[in-house]
Amino acid sequence: MSAPVAPFPQVDHQRALFPEGLALDCGTMIAPLAVAYRTYGTLNAARSNAVLVCHALTGDQYMAEPHPLTGKSGWWDSIVGPGKPLDTDRYFLICVNVLGGCMGSTGPQEEMTDAEGRGLGRPWGTDFPNITIRDMVRAQKRLTDHLGIGRLLAVVGGSMGGMQALEWAATFPDAVYAAAPIATAAYHSAQNIAFHEVGRAAIHSDPAWKGGRYWEDGRVPAQGLSVARMVAHITYLSEQALTRKFGRRLRGASALTFLEDVFEVESYLRHQGSTFVRRFDANSYLTITRAMDYFDLAQEHGGDLASAFRGTKTRFFVASFSSDWLFPTAESRQIVRALNAAAANVSFVEVTSDKGHDAFLLDEPDFHRALGGFLAGCADRLGV
Amino acid sequence: MSAPVAPFPQVDHQRALFPEGLALDCGTMIAPLAVAYRTYGTLNAARSNAVLVCHALTGDQYMAEPHPLTGKSGWWDSIVGPGKPLDTDRYFLICVNVLGGCMGSTGPQEEMTDAEGRGLGRPWGTDFPNITIRDMVRAQKRLTDHLGIGRLLAVVGGSMGGMQALEWAATFPDAVYAAAPIATAAYHSAQNIAFHEVGRAAIHSDPAWKGGRYWEDGRVPAQGLSVARMVAHITYLSEQALTRKFGRRLRGASALTFLEDVFEVESYLRHQGSTFVRRFDANSYLTITRAMDYFDLAQEHGGDLASAFRGTKTRFFVASFSSDWLFPTAESRQIVRALNAAAANVSFVEVTSDKGHDAFLLDEPDFHRALGGFLAGCADRLGV
Repeated sequence: MSAPVAPFPQVDHQRALFPEGLALDCGTMIAPLAVAYRTYGTLNAARSNAVLVCHALTGDQYMAEPHPLTGKSGWWDSIVGPGKPLDTDRYFLICVNVLGGCMGSTGPQEEMTDAEGRGLGRPWGTDFPNITIRDMVRAQKRLTDHLGIGRLLAVVGGSMGGMQALEWAATFPDAVYAAAPIATAAYHSAQNIAFHEVGRAAIHSDPAWKGGRYWEDGRVPAQGLSVARMVAHITYLSEQALTRKFGRRLRGASALTFLEDVFEVESYLRHQGSTFVRRFDANSYLTITRAMDYFDLAQEHGGDLASAFRGTKTRFFVASFSSDWLFPTAESRQIVRALNAAAANVSFVEVTSDKGHDAFLLDEPDFHRALGGFLAGCADRLGV
Repeated sequence: MSAPVAPFPQVDHQRALFPEGLALDCGTMIAPLAVAYRTYGTLNAARSNAVLVCHALTGDQYMAEPHPLTGKSGWWDSIVGPGKPLDTDRYFLICVNVLGGCMGSTGPQEEMTDAEGRGLGRPWGTDFPNITIRDMVRAQKRLTDHLGIGRLLAVVGGSMGGMQALEWAATFPDAVYAAAPIATAAYHSAQNIAFHEVGRAAIHSDPAWKGGRYWEDGRVPAQGLSVARMVAHITYLSEQALTRKFGRRLRGASALTFLEDVFEVESYLRHQGSTFVRRFDANSYLTITRAMDYFDLAQEHGGDLASAFRGTKTRFFVASFSSDWLFPTAESRQIVRALNAAAANVSFVEVTSDKGHDAFLLDEPDFHRALGGFLAGCADRLGV
């Protein structure tokens, strides 16, 4: 099926195949469509307890189990499990590798197909069509339909996952009882686009990049992708978090060596970069960052964000974190104002945290209580 | 004298040569010492109207005249000139290319010398010793002594230039009547170190880098240095400034192309990066960013910042900008608190601006009035 070019062994991901393919916002039809996913918990007889969890830029469907490539625990283990806010005893959780990803769903790393869906014996690479957050959501909708789920109890996601939660509520309002966009925004800001562009420039300047055809000689632009991860990682943290973690601590004894990593924060960043390239494809990184940059929900609805939610029956839970400077609280407030203007049912919480954007992935009891309470309340109303 | 490896034509910079050399903090003696500089205005008979202006990371001595390489106007033209805050009719302004720079002062691009100061027919490159902000200041002191200036009316600088102004006041208190550290800090924060490290990693990952010996084949790590400049440039601006300048404006008509620069902010950043490499040496960038990272004035004085200024007679003007997130106002307040604890004469202003760190270089009338007033007041007291 696929022509792997990744630096890591391919995994036999659980996935659903849709031969008819998917029509993308850019006008291209991509077929077949593969949607890789994981589920946790049990779907009840009424099929009314399904919660879709949308992952962030570099996340994947393995949110609550050891990662098949790195062996690390799931990115949302802290919140998913029996008795946890995303309670696997009560909810049927679905997590989908986004369209354009590199963990089994149709993406730049998978085998390129022609208009008739015939495999061309080479990966898509940079020939993979431009996709949008809405395309990702449409692919997820194919899966929930396939699973016989007419309406999701909730769509939950942080960062880019939150963009998907907003897009779900705007595009398929009747299929979403509740939506929880977390640490996110209704559009990608100029500064965030700029940081993404630095990462893309780093990948493009790697000699192994070869205009995106690095799969030809089985090499990957590891150094460029590593630099991209390093700069992105800084934006996921906060000045306070970095200072608490590392301050100005030096690694060596001497303060005046010329090691490539003199300060602890440097070796930490380089470690982040070097481990990332073992699990993520550079062309996927370019495709997904671009999709985030394009995201502008108001623009999709005539420039008026409120009109994206006009008449919605979906219940919303919007959460931000006080030290998140990548998706600052002000951008969550814009979502809340639009939802209020659309007379939607919305609750909003700004969680006080000094952990930066990553706070939504970390142990934040107040946030966990608030999200868990919101979901439980929705489930109670539906008699789940 | 020098073995140029830069991608730009060498300029016959005005400079003073000190054959005896300079003893560096790292324990190395570097000889001869070359200090490239420019002066503006006229030194009065009493030699009492000299103001030293210290440039930032990527600045140089050409602060108020067309740049010899780019032809662009001086980086502080807005503030330097007849009748301007740094009034060339009243003050004798001196601007020095920092030690480790690439515009004529001793640095990685200049010819390497042995312990006896004999030229080795190759540039220093990465063999250039580690330097500190204090080393830069000591080199500047050699020049002011050489010019017969016993006491400077003032030392003024923004960003890394502000670090030098603080170091001048701490190291040569009797030689500095007034000091104006602007948009700066008494130490480099973990986040700032992290952003510098991303830039260094980008340079190190450029195939032309060749472990720093790129001068051997006359090439330069242009792509890596360009990426370093791009990420640094984002930190010099503010979210508001980026949004006002570019917002989410697309360059092309289509919103779904895969051009390397789809958004205007991207082409702007790439332009910043590509023009920078025409005037700046990668090894200088590594040397100077490292010097900034090392800077910790309190650590130089037993961990107590106030003791760096104990008993000082120097008058201080500290200025920060409200939207500067690289050197936030909180870090200027730490300087002010230490100066107060040292019973120093200090005035502090936080300028309300949405232009970010770069505000100190831009047209900020309130800032210009405050700085000009401070300098004029000092000059009046000295009867200059």
